[in-house]
Amino acid sequence: MEHAIKEGVMKLLEEGVPLAELSIERVARTAGVGKATIYRRWSGKEELFVDVVRAAEPPDPQLPGTGMRDDLVALLEAMRRRGLASRSSAILHNVYAQMKSSPRIWSAYHASVIAPRRDLTMKVLRRARENGELPSDVDLELVFDLFTGPMLVRAVMRPDADLPEDLAERIVDTVLAGLRPVSPPAAQR
Amino acid sequence: MEHAIKEGVMKLLEEGVPLAELSIERVARTAGVGKATIYRRWSGKEELFVDVVRAAEPPDPQLPGTGMRDDLVALLEAMRRRGLASRSSAILHNVYAQMKSSPRIWSAYHASVIAPRRDLTMKVLRRARENGELPSDVDLELVFDLFTGPMLVRAVMRPDADLPEDLAERIVDTVLAGLRPVSPPAAQR
Repeated sequence: MEHAIKEGVMKLLEEGVPLAELSIERVARTAGVGKATIYRRWSGKEELFVDVVRAAEPPDPQLPGTGMRDDLVALLEAMRRRGLASRSSAILHNVYAQMKSSPRIWSAYHASVIAPRRDLTMKVLRRARENGELPSDVDLELVFDLFTGPMLVRAVMRPDADLPEDLAERIVDTVLAGLRPVSPPAAQR
Repeated sequence: MEHAIKEGVMKLLEEGVPLAELSIERVARTAGVGKATIYRRWSGKEELFVDVVRAAEPPDPQLPGTGMRDDLVALLEAMRRRGLASRSSAILHNVYAQMKSSPRIWSAYHASVIAPRRDLTMKVLRRARENGELPSDVDLELVFDLFTGPMLVRAVMRPDADLPEDLAERIVDTVLAGLRPVSPPAAQR
């Protein structure tokens, strides 16, 4: 039943129905169920819609748990895959764009999808600071942005940017190692 | 004369006129000049509008030229200031949002404002790789995103994120130094 309802929303989106016109009534009619059936599962259009987007996105990653480096690579790799998905799926692309111009749906998506992802990453970083994988005096908010910012920019802000397979590993390993040259710069020799 | 025309556009924007309704004719009427006067200076609405946004933004930075680190701090500090400006100026904020939903204006802004900024940063990085301030085998596109991504995310994508005064320095210095702890992690002792 849930599946048929989500399929109904996808069908309407594929037909190009704008988010603003996608009412619970219309979804019910398309899915061949009563409005009450939908409201038993979702409190409103926003929640239903966020669930549909989630189902269309690549699944959230399983963290290997072998240490900060590998967990971060898995988290960034998931961001890369979502970026690839929104490029290859016209619907997902269209849905993200519409979502950002609808503050209520965006805030539902943020609360139920984006915020938990951020919390999970912060948990990985906090644990790493505690067990000595990160310097003990490090600002975790800054570290979060140093790792995720470069991937977010490539995956979301610049839709034509390269997303090579090893990008997650390269970002994580370069930020960990730093960018100092092996020998001192010419100017200081 | 140029100034009066730009002021005219600002006045219309302050009155809440949406970008789509902001015609050259209307600007001419508001500024008290003929349409031909505007077309002598700007080839169209897009170019005029981009110039108005530019005049409202904080000026692009002068690079100190004392080395990659200081040049990068200046470039990131300018991004931080633009982020602060778009938060404190309701007009600028509104204009950025409208610009992004108008592909023609966004592409004019991108070509005449964003692309040159990126070119300047890439030039700083290329020079640094040549003179040994960066490892010689480094991927400059990746390095660009490692430095600018974290600032871009804070300044543009998360309008409620903290933009402290020392953020540019902290991003640049942390990416250069890396995030390895001073002593080896507990797990490896």
